[in-house]
Amino acid sequence: MSEFDLISRYFATKFPQRPDVDLSIGDDAAICTIPPNMQLVTAIDTLVADVHFPLLTTKPEDVGYKALAVNLSDMAAMGATPVWMTLALTCPEFNEIWLQRFSDGLLELAQLNQVSLIGGDTTRGPLTITIQITGLVPLNTALKRNGAKPGDSIYVTGTLGDAGLGLQVAKQQIILSESVKKYTLSRLNRPTPRLQIGQKLLKIATSAIDISDGLVADLGHILNASNVGASLQIDNLPLSDELLESVPYETAIKLALSAGDDYELCFTIPKSEILPVNSCTYIGKIEANLGLRCLTKTGNIFIPKTSGYQHF
Amino acid sequence: MSEFDLISRYFATKFPQRPDVDLSIGDDAAICTIPPNMQLVTAIDTLVADVHFPLLTTKPEDVGYKALAVNLSDMAAMGATPVWMTLALTCPEFNEIWLQRFSDGLLELAQLNQVSLIGGDTTRGPLTITIQITGLVPLNTALKRNGAKPGDSIYVTGTLGDAGLGLQVAKQQIILSESVKKYTLSRLNRPTPRLQIGQKLLKIATSAIDISDGLVADLGHILNASNVGASLQIDNLPLSDELLESVPYETAIKLALSAGDDYELCFTIPKSEILPVNSCTYIGKIEANLGLRCLTKTGNIFIPKTSGYQHF
Repeated sequence: MSEFDLISRYFATKFPQRPDVDLSIGDDAAICTIPPNMQLVTAIDTLVADVHFPLLTTKPEDVGYKALAVNLSDMAAMGATPVWMTLALTCPEFNEIWLQRFSDGLLELAQLNQVSLIGGDTTRGPLTITIQITGLVPLNTALKRNGAKPGDSIYVTGTLGDAGLGLQVAKQQIILSESVKKYTLSRLNRPTPRLQIGQKLLKIATSAIDISDGLVADLGHILNASNVGASLQIDNLPLSDELLESVPYETAIKLALSAGDDYELCFTIPKSEILPVNSCTYIGKIEANLGLRCLTKTGNIFIPKTSGYQHF
Repeated sequence: MSEFDLISRYFATKFPQRPDVDLSIGDDAAICTIPPNMQLVTAIDTLVADVHFPLLTTKPEDVGYKALAVNLSDMAAMGATPVWMTLALTCPEFNEIWLQRFSDGLLELAQLNQVSLIGGDTTRGPLTITIQITGLVPLNTALKRNGAKPGDSIYVTGTLGDAGLGLQVAKQQIILSESVKKYTLSRLNRPTPRLQIGQKLLKIATSAIDISDGLVADLGHILNASNVGASLQIDNLPLSDELLESVPYETAIKLALSAGDDYELCFTIPKSEILPVNSCTYIGKIEANLGLRCLTKTGNIFIPKTSGYQHF
């Protein structure tokens, strides 16, 4: 089967068709039209087999789902509405069953968010999936990392640390009950991009980021970009029942602070603003004093190591 | 060194800065503004080490140059002006010398075409380079594959088959003089995207494609998309002196017809139109009769196999 048949069979036709896509897969490039008064928001993310997911124990559907989810999460962190994606898929062989299942997972999340697949490249080589996502945002409203101000409140969505525990499950480093195993693996393999929350934060949040490398590392990016510091109320960190019943409290906190892959949002809003969304937890405040300080209920302070997941 | 330092050191600052890029590398996504009455043109292409280039014998500068060139060639085939790119770079280790040289090659071609690098992802894994390129084209003028009409003249830019010979040189399958070796390797590793020619063909060409998989395969895409056939004057195919002096004439023709990697343009214009560009060669005409017929000077006809480079 040629590259062209492969692309058209699995990817070209089943994805949502948007009216702003004037020419989709099947030419040298795709052509799209941008509505007036909107800006283009663009991110690109790669998943490498056995680096970002264990190849043998990860379902192809989950690989497809997650490859798009991590990109949508970047759109969420900008408050953007995702519209189009391109897919660069490198795989060692033409495996029809794997491709079918991979595209099913990708399609599921694309349909949920009405994202069109407008282009792609399939190449032979070690399994690597790169998706570039494009979104739209009203002119000059996008959420950035550099606007946090002393006094702002820091919030996170959802719960933290679940995906970190899921990675231990996937790597068979920990034995858990079936239900907890299922929950944490789902959090690892099928993260929920917080798109609606990001969009509701436009014009309200002073900064936002998605937590891909761990809270300490990613909040650290906000602090650096905004030239501010912060103190965190460690005992406020949102932890799931599943996490709390699986590991000691200290381990749960450690996972929440430094494990990546949760793809929740961390954002700041001025103290005077009313939070326009549910399912977010106040975890601390921005301060003029640079650096990140973690405070416990008993008044102890510790300074976490600022490194999250290191790619090299 | 963290991913963030790596990105900023090698990629973020040295590339051309365009005024339409509102937020570049360093946040969750980039933000760009599109001028009114323009459409967005988007393509993505991957180079895999030891699949698309021999790792041991290809200079890192050439890898960087070619990774962008193949994407710019897609822009040329659409008549678009490239403006922004993103880079997904997967490499097995942090090799500062390799990265420096790779980025030098990438930068050279980016500067030549004033393309901004607006985002990226660096991951650990087998060497794979994916670039997504975005270009602009005036509303409803982009060149497509599906507009060729019976009677149209078929042209190609430059010369064909040189990169195919260059691949044999790179794989050490053929011994040639130093000057021919240098020429063909340059044609293989540093193809010239025909951007100016593509842009001049707007509103004139009825179809266009870039020749990445071989003339027969890529012209075949035009014929299929346009639902027409063609006859080629084989002895009109533009062949370089270097190719002609290196291999028998029949081999040169075979390389011109079926070797990929030349990244010249193949396009059709109505017989009544005057060609608005130089350095193009008339090679045949579009016919209502489906299929591709190759005619020699002596009146022989043969039907070439329609497969170019097969990715799987």
